[in-house]
Amino acid sequence: MNTPGQPAQQGARSLDPHLRRYAARTAGMTASEIRALFAVASRPEVVSLAGGMPHLAALPLDSLSAEVGELIAADGLVALQYGSAHGVPELREQICDVMALEGITAHPDDVVVTVGSQMGLDMVTRIFCDPGDVVLAEGPSYVGALGSFAAYQAEVVHVAMDADGLEPTALREAIAAVEKAGRRVKFLYTIPNFHNPAGVTLAVRRRAEVLEVCRAHGILVVEDNPYGLLGFDGVTYPALRSTDPDNVVYLGSFSKTFAAGLRVGWVLAPHAVREKLVLAAESATLCPPTLNQLIVSRYLSTHDWQGQVKTYREAYRERRDAAISALEQHMPAGSTWNKPNGGFYVWLTVPEGIDTKAMLPRAITQRVAYASGTGFYADGLGSRQLRISYCYPTPERIREGVRRLANVIKDELELHETFGPGAPRAVSGPQAPSPDTA
Amino acid sequence: MNTPGQPAQQGARSLDPHLRRYAARTAGMTASEIRALFAVASRPEVVSLAGGMPHLAALPLDSLSAEVGELIAADGLVALQYGSAHGVPELREQICDVMALEGITAHPDDVVVTVGSQMGLDMVTRIFCDPGDVVLAEGPSYVGALGSFAAYQAEVVHVAMDADGLEPTALREAIAAVEKAGRRVKFLYTIPNFHNPAGVTLAVRRRAEVLEVCRAHGILVVEDNPYGLLGFDGVTYPALRSTDPDNVVYLGSFSKTFAAGLRVGWVLAPHAVREKLVLAAESATLCPPTLNQLIVSRYLSTHDWQGQVKTYREAYRERRDAAISALEQHMPAGSTWNKPNGGFYVWLTVPEGIDTKAMLPRAITQRVAYASGTGFYADGLGSRQLRISYCYPTPERIREGVRRLANVIKDELELHETFGPGAPRAVSGPQAPSPDTA
Repeated sequence: MNTPGQPAQQGARSLDPHLRRYAARTAGMTASEIRALFAVASRPEVVSLAGGMPHLAALPLDSLSAEVGELIAADGLVALQYGSAHGVPELREQICDVMALEGITAHPDDVVVTVGSQMGLDMVTRIFCDPGDVVLAEGPSYVGALGSFAAYQAEVVHVAMDADGLEPTALREAIAAVEKAGRRVKFLYTIPNFHNPAGVTLAVRRRAEVLEVCRAHGILVVEDNPYGLLGFDGVTYPALRSTDPDNVVYLGSFSKTFAAGLRVGWVLAPHAVREKLVLAAESATLCPPTLNQLIVSRYLSTHDWQGQVKTYREAYRERRDAAISALEQHMPAGSTWNKPNGGFYVWLTVPEGIDTKAMLPRAITQRVAYASGTGFYADGLGSRQLRISYCYPTPERIREGVRRLANVIKDELELHETFGPGAPRAVSGPQAPSPDTA
Repeated sequence: MNTPGQPAQQGARSLDPHLRRYAARTAGMTASEIRALFAVASRPEVVSLAGGMPHLAALPLDSLSAEVGELIAADGLVALQYGSAHGVPELREQICDVMALEGITAHPDDVVVTVGSQMGLDMVTRIFCDPGDVVLAEGPSYVGALGSFAAYQAEVVHVAMDADGLEPTALREAIAAVEKAGRRVKFLYTIPNFHNPAGVTLAVRRRAEVLEVCRAHGILVVEDNPYGLLGFDGVTYPALRSTDPDNVVYLGSFSKTFAAGLRVGWVLAPHAVREKLVLAAESATLCPPTLNQLIVSRYLSTHDWQGQVKTYREAYRERRDAAISALEQHMPAGSTWNKPNGGFYVWLTVPEGIDTKAMLPRAITQRVAYASGTGFYADGLGSRQLRISYCYPTPERIREGVRRLANVIKDELELHETFGPGAPRAVSGPQAPSPDTA
């Protein structure tokens, strides 16, 4: 039988003289479907709705250039020198101000600066997860998180979500099933706002319940919130951390509110956990780049950074509108999607019988790329779904990309009419148009 | 009985509500003695011979400032955007040119850019080491490497070194002992040039033998070479990688040849291993900061970077001379040290009866800080030794620091004359003045 990934591994087995030397965890490291896509999807004739690259064109490069130049001239001996694994103190104070916008009260000592919030995620998993420990995560979930969990041999159990985000009932059931199996849940990993890839937001009325369920079962909550300030209605939701500081580890990032290429993120953790994180970070990278931290710190203090976030929000709302109107115009019956209130992503369910992963090469031939749904599940679900990222291309390109995608789907359906459809597929995650689209 | 570290752990047990949640590996994460020092040692009245911070004062900050400003203005949309986990292609080509200075022939595809070579070390350990696997390392060894090995629950077996570096006989014996115990050696971790902390260099005549022994026993070699271009006689030794490309993973860094605060390092690995490294790096940080890679790339192509390395070399040689002459002038009988030919460090063995870790608080009271020897061993050795870093302070401060240190040691000896010495201590690592000092 053809297990996914097996042919490649067999190839590696015969070619790689080091194969017998790898750690057990290395077997779980496989190239993500999305990463494999980047090369083809970056050809100019292809409209890429696949990547999650932020739209940077709105950044004030001239003033940034001057500021960074000045920083190096005036403060280069600090900016180019080692710092602490904990992060630059002034930046950690400013990060507390940023988090205050979401109702968080925090002490700068409890903030650890990381090389993007991906590193925060990796460090949190490092300090908490032994092989075989269970991590609960929405289904679907962020592909980079699944990668980190796999790297530490944690097992992901997905929790269903609907248009209002994580379902508390499903959370209770998942915990009960894991506990019944005698397994240990280490934490719930959740992206409450403008979810990647599902696009939905955890309803405010559900937040206390989710926290309460986790607390009752002794389960830590890891709140990943890169998109929280990118709500299209200008609404910022209260962070889970704001109401349960002792049981929530919060991950933040400047990748979407400022610039991804600087790789500056952070973890806010309960005090004792923070100490472990600093130790873990020290053995991972010694310290985050000092220059990058000082650039962000200076940017926050000298630029109208909230004005810039507003500019980003407007750019993304325009793109979201382009994606949604094109979906409404072109998608064949039997497709469903949600209309996100913020962030970068629409989660599309295609008509029955279509396998989005199998369809991808044909889509690329038709000059449109997307991320197929299976990459966002640790358990093989998602084959009838895909993620549309509207963050990077222009609205015109997005409309054209969605039009091409709709044609690819229609071609698939025609093929099925002629040759019969594929097997019915299980579907998970929010499928129906969310209440927002009503 | 009072196991080291136990009191602190007991304290943590009562204070940290998350204690039962941590992964097994987290128990091995303890604050390094050196890190605990940085806070006190950074007070201006203290001469710190503890840290390994490079001397940056020689950097051309004005032209760097202009270049980086220009980079952001002209290329900001790339510099501030996500890149690949593999690293910027142009930089990987330039890295191959840098390595060519050490006799290495490599393809840019086999280079992975990392967030400092600490991350390279962490990634190599991640892909190779299961808990309980053995890593061979010189005794003493780099404290950050010991931290990464502990984070992956690998067990370090130290291999003795002398003034000519790692001893091949000791290597053979260590391998035999590990194999006899039915344990698995995953790799030999070695710093062949201007060792941290021992200051010695692996004699060229020993290099082929070390490679041969490892190859014969199926043991990978991890060559960590941050100081290779900092030889005071302008001599660059052939890298281990240059003669055994299939069995050596090479770690390089711009932290000592350019600027540590950018955190740009790299791994050169056999092709199949490189693929695993990219996957591991992707789940660790997604990608290294793009801006930093472009800064290094531009610096390499527009600056006389080898001239800058020469400037660094001269600055460090002057500091080495200051340290050695002060040691000769002030140290009491019974102290031994080596005279390094490059790099940042002198390894000092103090007279019998003195415990360098216990002495440290008294030294700081006398306004001098150092790194005590035990931090460089995974097995508790090193208590009669300490590392002097001459890289950062001015020659005057180094001389003053060594003078203060000598006085502290003399005070200890006087105390012992009055109250009796401590117990005799096992000594390891190069102790006698090396042939260089003859």
